[in-house]
Amino acid sequence: MLQRSPLAPSRFPQIPEIPGVELAGRHVGLKPAKGVKDLMVVRLARGTTVAGMFTTSRCPSAPVDWCKKILSTGKARAIVVNSGNANAFTGNAGDLVVEETVKAAAKLIGCSRKQVYVASTGVIGEPVPPDYIAKSLPRMVRDLKPKSWRQAADAILTTDTFPKAAARSAMIGNTKVTVAGFTKGSGMIAPDMATMLSFVFTDAKIPARVLQSILKAAVDKSYNCITVDSDTSTSDTVLLCATGKGKRHPAVSSARDAHLKGFRRVVEELLIDLATQVVRDGEGAQKLITIDVTGAVSPQSARKIGLTVANSPLVKTAVAGEDANWGRLVMAVGKTGEPADRDRLSITMGGVPITEWGVVREDYVEDPVSEHMKGQNVHIGIDIGLGRGKARVWTCDLTHGYISINADYRS
Amino acid sequence: MLQRSPLAPSRFPQIPEIPGVELAGRHVGLKPAKGVKDLMVVRLARGTTVAGMFTTSRCPSAPVDWCKKILSTGKARAIVVNSGNANAFTGNAGDLVVEETVKAAAKLIGCSRKQVYVASTGVIGEPVPPDYIAKSLPRMVRDLKPKSWRQAADAILTTDTFPKAAARSAMIGNTKVTVAGFTKGSGMIAPDMATMLSFVFTDAKIPARVLQSILKAAVDKSYNCITVDSDTSTSDTVLLCATGKGKRHPAVSSARDAHLKGFRRVVEELLIDLATQVVRDGEGAQKLITIDVTGAVSPQSARKIGLTVANSPLVKTAVAGEDANWGRLVMAVGKTGEPADRDRLSITMGGVPITEWGVVREDYVEDPVSEHMKGQNVHIGIDIGLGRGKARVWTCDLTHGYISINADYRS
Repeated sequence: MLQRSPLAPSRFPQIPEIPGVELAGRHVGLKPAKGVKDLMVVRLARGTTVAGMFTTSRCPSAPVDWCKKILSTGKARAIVVNSGNANAFTGNAGDLVVEETVKAAAKLIGCSRKQVYVASTGVIGEPVPPDYIAKSLPRMVRDLKPKSWRQAADAILTTDTFPKAAARSAMIGNTKVTVAGFTKGSGMIAPDMATMLSFVFTDAKIPARVLQSILKAAVDKSYNCITVDSDTSTSDTVLLCATGKGKRHPAVSSARDAHLKGFRRVVEELLIDLATQVVRDGEGAQKLITIDVTGAVSPQSARKIGLTVANSPLVKTAVAGEDANWGRLVMAVGKTGEPADRDRLSITMGGVPITEWGVVREDYVEDPVSEHMKGQNVHIGIDIGLGRGKARVWTCDLTHGYISINADYRS
Repeated sequence: MLQRSPLAPSRFPQIPEIPGVELAGRHVGLKPAKGVKDLMVVRLARGTTVAGMFTTSRCPSAPVDWCKKILSTGKARAIVVNSGNANAFTGNAGDLVVEETVKAAAKLIGCSRKQVYVASTGVIGEPVPPDYIAKSLPRMVRDLKPKSWRQAADAILTTDTFPKAAARSAMIGNTKVTVAGFTKGSGMIAPDMATMLSFVFTDAKIPARVLQSILKAAVDKSYNCITVDSDTSTSDTVLLCATGKGKRHPAVSSARDAHLKGFRRVVEELLIDLATQVVRDGEGAQKLITIDVTGAVSPQSARKIGLTVANSPLVKTAVAGEDANWGRLVMAVGKTGEPADRDRLSITMGGVPITEWGVVREDYVEDPVSEHMKGQNVHIGIDIGLGRGKARVWTCDLTHGYISINADYRS
């Protein structure tokens, strides 16, 4: 068992029940360690709508293929997720596992197969017997409880060192609704997306098409703004499910409805909370790095610059070494290929202005920056000086821990 | 001083004199360590033609700006290179250093300022006094000798653990010509290009425009096919100089001249030799990884896939751990975004077929691959199964050594 990340929150958060959502998590043997949970099931009330976003990998896993296929129905009744095995690059055998799992879940829950979502995370390329998950489902379904957030969050972990969950409330009109979810991810984390699974639920009543639009906007500001190691998994999945079983609220017809504004903001906040928990659990992470890029020619350009800085091994090792090496930031901005002019670049670290108009400020003294670098939260500010585009991205430092974890994951 | 890379060649190669090329390298104080060479000068015979390629960074160093500006003249009489300070992100002060250096060199050598090339490598953002290099030039020029390859190669090193040079001969018609050069680079190495400096010389007589075309083709197969850490420097420079002082050979008018075929191939070979020496000295490198991508939809696509695999921290740490984790190769191919189909992918390691048609081969046994992974040279073969595009790229493994070197480079 890996040591808990020093950036982990002190405890698992209180997550309220969400009407229409029941969960279960337990050990069925996909992970070798006895008692370690590796299968999760969520049952959703009839009428639940769903939105989803998936890995952009050209070699996605069998479960991702399935979910993408059924997403257009906009309805979900069950989510079945296993850890310990990614069911990726498993050819026909992989498709068969999905088929058997979906068939069994649909039968137990009493719904169409097209309302059963699946996800798998773990080792790539090692098939499991087709009915391995299916045969464990009856006892999982008997276990389902509205309060089992912790069990579910535990059951989807791989190299994670802590379970990750968050909850918020929002107002739609005068009605309070709840949004809550959990996520996993620690390595192979990069935008679009990461070996990252995320399941978020609300009791609000929102059409699937509106939900999709809200999810996309929120993912763009959260999961697509984090990186641990620039590696993209074959299995990334984020689902947002709306059961419609909360208190009655004004009807929703468009993502732009004025009374949805608060809800949209809360979903974004929640996803940022979950996504940064993934970074806090970045393999070997000792520091959370927040990078604010401003003054780029567009928001897209700002995000690209931010992620290039966030992915630079030289920047990440400098932070690990608590070294205020802003020269590497210039290097990383330069390599992005986005419009930038070294004579307009301004850089801050820990809020301390370091460079201005392409040179070190005359009044710059390194001490307060060095002090800032010793903390667990490092802030980097980069102003490109060309436009109004901005973006915030998150990453972690690159340490000996990352090498140790990844040089012997499988063995 | 860093420990010599285990992948270093056993000794510095024999480099023959090249008529029209004289070199010098010595310590002038840009590197703090006493006696460690940090300034190099090359004097070139009158009439020497030159071709150059430079970093694609949007924040290039002052020396790169200068070289790009004068390259169109096609002529070179001197190259002045310092290590210990990159003269990058130094604003006007940086331009002033270049100006003073070029002025002094032109006067000493008796040539136009536009025939003096400069390069700097080392720490970013710390200006040196404008005449620091200029005032050391007289004694450097007195030192110039045709045999001083080793001194010159030593003087451009930064975190390198060994000097890098190579020589070849080629035939143009029935005339033997010589090509020789040296290079530096160890971290911040990625295509287009790297903190990589490379200076190559020939005694052949070749018009600048033809030389540029030969250089571009060779760089595309060598320096643009290597990566250590995906980071691109502000200072990358490769120059190819032809003195025309060798034996008389058939006149050259186009890069496509039939009698240039052998010369072109030799330049490519030489640049691959030099470029892979850079990878062999990759920070913390314990293994040289050669990746052959075949069956891609185009050569460009093949190179992009190869470099994505080569830059994947998860692939590089797996190799460091001597782990035949081919699943990470699938992941890396998938994240490239280039056309690929997991059901057509075939992967080999050490020449052993592992997967075929998207699944592990039934006859696959890991032992011979594990044995191969224990060696210093790891070969990865990836057949995309879609077309005829192919590319070969090189990288090194990602080890604790990389973290150690880069977490305290400056301090």
